[in-house]
Amino acid sequence: MLEPHSYAAGQWVAPARDAAILNSPVTGAAIARAGGAALDFQGMIDWATSRGGPALRAMTFHERAKMLKALAMYIDGRKEELYALNPLTGATRKDGWIDIDGGIGTMFVFASKGRREMPDSHVYLDGEIEQLSRGGTFLGQHIALPLHGVAVHINAFNFPVWGMLEKLAPALLAGVPCIVKPATQTSFLTEACVRIMMDSGLLPEGAVQLIIGRTGDLLSRLGPQDVVSFTGSARTALALRSMPNIIENGTRFIAEQDSLNASIMGLDVTPDCPEFDLFIREATTELTTKAGQKCTAIRRMIVPDAMMDPVIGALSARLEKTTIGDPEAEGVRMGALVSATQKADVLEMAALIGTETTRVYGDPDNFDTQGADPTHGFLPPMLFRCDDPDAAKQVHSTEAFGPVSTILPYRDTAHAAALANRGQGSLVASVITNDPQIARDITLASAHWHGRLYFNNRTSAKEATGHGSPLPHMTHGGPGRAGGGEEMGGIRGVLHYMQRTAIQGSPDILTAICGVWVSGAKEKTGPCHPFQRTFHEIEIGETITTDPRKVTLEDIEHFAHFTGDAFYAHMDEDAAKANPFFPGRVAHGYLLLSFAAGLFVQPDPGPVLANTGLNALTFQQPVSPDDEIHVRLTAKRKTRRTDEYGEVRWNATLYNQRGDQVAEYELLTMVAYSR
Amino acid sequence: MLEPHSYAAGQWVAPARDAAILNSPVTGAAIARAGGAALDFQGMIDWATSRGGPALRAMTFHERAKMLKALAMYIDGRKEELYALNPLTGATRKDGWIDIDGGIGTMFVFASKGRREMPDSHVYLDGEIEQLSRGGTFLGQHIALPLHGVAVHINAFNFPVWGMLEKLAPALLAGVPCIVKPATQTSFLTEACVRIMMDSGLLPEGAVQLIIGRTGDLLSRLGPQDVVSFTGSARTALALRSMPNIIENGTRFIAEQDSLNASIMGLDVTPDCPEFDLFIREATTELTTKAGQKCTAIRRMIVPDAMMDPVIGALSARLEKTTIGDPEAEGVRMGALVSATQKADVLEMAALIGTETTRVYGDPDNFDTQGADPTHGFLPPMLFRCDDPDAAKQVHSTEAFGPVSTILPYRDTAHAAALANRGQGSLVASVITNDPQIARDITLASAHWHGRLYFNNRTSAKEATGHGSPLPHMTHGGPGRAGGGEEMGGIRGVLHYMQRTAIQGSPDILTAICGVWVSGAKEKTGPCHPFQRTFHEIEIGETITTDPRKVTLEDIEHFAHFTGDAFYAHMDEDAAKANPFFPGRVAHGYLLLSFAAGLFVQPDPGPVLANTGLNALTFQQPVSPDDEIHVRLTAKRKTRRTDEYGEVRWNATLYNQRGDQVAEYELLTMVAYSR
Repeated sequence: MLEPHSYAAGQWVAPARDAAILNSPVTGAAIARAGGAALDFQGMIDWATSRGGPALRAMTFHERAKMLKALAMYIDGRKEELYALNPLTGATRKDGWIDIDGGIGTMFVFASKGRREMPDSHVYLDGEIEQLSRGGTFLGQHIALPLHGVAVHINAFNFPVWGMLEKLAPALLAGVPCIVKPATQTSFLTEACVRIMMDSGLLPEGAVQLIIGRTGDLLSRLGPQDVVSFTGSARTALALRSMPNIIENGTRFIAEQDSLNASIMGLDVTPDCPEFDLFIREATTELTTKAGQKCTAIRRMIVPDAMMDPVIGALSARLEKTTIGDPEAEGVRMGALVSATQKADVLEMAALIGTETTRVYGDPDNFDTQGADPTHGFLPPMLFRCDDPDAAKQVHSTEAFGPVSTILPYRDTAHAAALANRGQGSLVASVITNDPQIARDITLASAHWHGRLYFNNRTSAKEATGHGSPLPHMTHGGPGRAGGGEEMGGIRGVLHYMQRTAIQGSPDILTAICGVWVSGAKEKTGPCHPFQRTFHEIEIGETITTDPRKVTLEDIEHFAHFTGDAFYAHMDEDAAKANPFFPGRVAHGYLLLSFAAGLFVQPDPGPVLANTGLNALTFQQPVSPDDEIHVRLTAKRKTRRTDEYGEVRWNATLYNQRGDQVAEYELLTMVAYSR
Repeated sequence: MLEPHSYAAGQWVAPARDAAILNSPVTGAAIARAGGAALDFQGMIDWATSRGGPALRAMTFHERAKMLKALAMYIDGRKEELYALNPLTGATRKDGWIDIDGGIGTMFVFASKGRREMPDSHVYLDGEIEQLSRGGTFLGQHIALPLHGVAVHINAFNFPVWGMLEKLAPALLAGVPCIVKPATQTSFLTEACVRIMMDSGLLPEGAVQLIIGRTGDLLSRLGPQDVVSFTGSARTALALRSMPNIIENGTRFIAEQDSLNASIMGLDVTPDCPEFDLFIREATTELTTKAGQKCTAIRRMIVPDAMMDPVIGALSARLEKTTIGDPEAEGVRMGALVSATQKADVLEMAALIGTETTRVYGDPDNFDTQGADPTHGFLPPMLFRCDDPDAAKQVHSTEAFGPVSTILPYRDTAHAAALANRGQGSLVASVITNDPQIARDITLASAHWHGRLYFNNRTSAKEATGHGSPLPHMTHGGPGRAGGGEEMGGIRGVLHYMQRTAIQGSPDILTAICGVWVSGAKEKTGPCHPFQRTFHEIEIGETITTDPRKVTLEDIEHFAHFTGDAFYAHMDEDAAKANPFFPGRVAHGYLLLSFAAGLFVQPDPGPVLANTGLNALTFQQPVSPDDEIHVRLTAKRKTRRTDEYGEVRWNATLYNQRGDQVAEYELLTMVAYSR
């Protein structure tokens, strides 16, 4: 008998004596006792905010990203412990892969994005400097810093590992401690993963806590610095987000709830297209994976009028081959629903859908199972056909959270989009089409009702990740019925745990706050050429101003002949004058860049190893023959990259002999930590 | 007698016979009858969504931006009509400048940002392409499209013009029709501005409607595609956001409400510093402008212990010189509060603050006014001194929305930040300091509680825009008590009226949806060199692939001598080999760029006028002597810029003879519409 423990304020807390008994959906046998322990919820909040929060905030974004990477590697090394428990949730190994490897993979992506897209410091910069004054003495910059409260993650039963990790990763990367509350039915699997994380010793104390069972008055204790991220039913979400303190404090409330996801077969698709098979394949996967218990599963298949019968035929033939049964038995493709209660709920919803449709595949009272008794948590895939999709109501509003889907016909692309939109807000809609114009038309008609639009066709078929797979790179969530929330989406998901603040001040003030040199801030002179300084020696603001160099007509002609770039603006005085941008012949932009490098580069070996790129180059004034240019090069931003070297970004500004800026860019270099 | 009309479904609707009478706060005389008309709120919503929404969405972002610019110019031309009504709100001409010119200026900034930062099309791209597959056949891109509902703007009495325009500008730029509901007391000024906008003929029918008086059941009719943007009291905000349909539909609700804004004098500041005078100047402005009726006004002045008496002394001396009275009278610096009711409310709140403070300046029962009877809407600036700021409660929670502020002492920077944070969420906190480290310390300790941090010192003093001025470039809003909302902030504020959707698909699908060529999408061949094609002729995806060119050791040496860039990686085989990035001597990055231009440039005059810049250049592989490079140049994105030419961005990719990518960048050109 499993006894998943809560983890509160540094202590593992066993279930109460009268805890609920959980039964296997496969055999009906009792498998676990869970919940009922009396927890000190205020103590948990205090533990998180007094220990976890400060410890996480003391780390930089990169340090937290490295922690996530190490944690993901550690869980990966012990993941078979999780796979061993997975069948007790009714799930096959393949279902478990989405949950367990999917969760670990999500954490890896956040670790990687944290290092690539966030700074190696404590202040995240949101967007660019805003020029608020002509003279440049007063500027603006948006920043984001972690909230000082706690993140409460309320997760659904269907993905006990992924559901936790996809929320933990962005919250921890932001620097916010978390309290995880999984659905009780599959909480033993979540608990096993939390135990592994605690064993790793990688998390600061207070960073993660776990509640098995009810949350009691936890949510009524939350304030303006806290975040709730809820996945579950619209009914529960509504009750929680209606709590007076949540409303009054503006406690952030992210919800993923009901969603009548649609998949549209494009009007270009006929049974002989590869897209037809692709549609059938995706539809089958979404119906059978996790026995259809996915918030992103396809509930409505919207197909051209003429494709109704071919789709039903092909899909039925394919489903016929899907073996249902004991998730551990050989050859089984579809396991059990998570519990008898869930099965009853699905049948009730399917009956509602049945009032306006005809069932064309799957009889819940008569189907085969392998190695298991069908009267336990099992159901067959069930397909319904709705011939009047415009009049239908239940089909567009009733989510049967199991292997249930309805097929609806449409007339034209606008009709298909309108039907998809009848869901009043979904997590994802997919379109299987090889016609880019159809993709665009549906996007413009539908994107406002959907959190994600997934397109697949013969080109992307091999690499596409599937209608139902939320990816850490892309936002997951949707408007209206889907809850109006948003998770993941790379750094977007991290920012949900942070406060954006507009900062205004002088260049020196902004430089100190942001850790990035801002144009107009103090320039420092180093003891030698900055290219001879190590990564750690180079100071933000360290500057060299080069000697001037005259750009002669001979230089321009020579460069043109050498490179082959004989554009008339460089070679023909009259033609150049006729151009609205030039006063006459001008130097090539690349000649200026090249001369600039010649002016600031220090030729000898030193810590600056390579120029790896260049950003945001603008040519601001033409340079005419005999103009003199010089360069100001200032260390702008430093980012550690490996154990041996880091990136230094430089502001390079070119001036002419009148002191006008003629070009500006950001120069990227790799610089060694030591000589 | 003014009779501000509502504007509903294309009709001007007069106030009801029994409409409320508004009195002048300056003279007490009746000035207007407002409100009470029976409006068909569902009709207004339908008018907005069936007419305004489709008309706005048919325009591109640039077309909407141009409309805003024209509208701002039109209002600017008739603004004296607004200034004529301004004194009836109790405001001086200078107060009116913030409201009227400030509102027009805000619209100009959104017009400009819309053209510079949004595309000349219907789909806004949020962030970069996400590489979701190794082979590049399946990619991700976040986009944003306008919501299909209506924006309801509920505005406060203090800025009848700015309060409307700062919300209209981002909503209209997004493509969402608006219903404006100003506070009744100053609605005649809002109405005058709406009449001017309607006269302009620039707005599509249904884009803007106006409600004078109560909103009845309007808000209970809103759904998931609608937005409420509310400015006013926390109590009203709470009532509105608690409405069941708002919660259940996830109707977006942006609130700016109470805020106990703080201004901190840095620990570095003493009476002989320029920052001391600056603090006094900013404090005086915030106390007296609009008679302190600003959501961003300083309610708490947090000063070093030792500065308490000097600050009180200097501030009192300065306030002594502030003439209060008829806003139209010569020399008057501070006008009336908006109404007798508002005055009574301020006195009530000031009394609460008085229970834990001492009043050190300003006696509401005894002060001079010029050209007006002080018993009408007038109050003097009132300063309170709080000597136990840690024990105080009212000071940190009671907003007296008038010329009232409390001075509190602090020990050290951490204490100052902690006191500022006691407001439990504010719109803005300012710090007057010349010490960048103090600025950074306060930011890290406080930014999570404030929507904006404003720093000022001797460097920025001349150009700084003031503690209390929200700018269109920067977000306006704050966490917790301030409402948890956010407005403006450039394009950030526009996105609040749009749905973000994650798009996944093949390169061709993304290209069609986004209107931007995505790497891997179809390449098209034009009838001639693309530099000979006009802006309109160039097609997205149009590509040339150049002949190869060998890069010889002689080229490298020649380039080094010509430019002066003799970096050892190009010149010294052994030293180059010792560098972790190079196999031996390699070509200069700028040599490759220059040769690339030589390969793809067409020398003759043609529609491509100039190379204006370059973005995101990465050098991906070293190029060794005798490697051969060639370039693929593909038209990526087109943006109309002026009446004569537009910007074309090209993807430039350099390959070596093995087909490896050695460099990639985005090339910016200006291209004429005609030959």
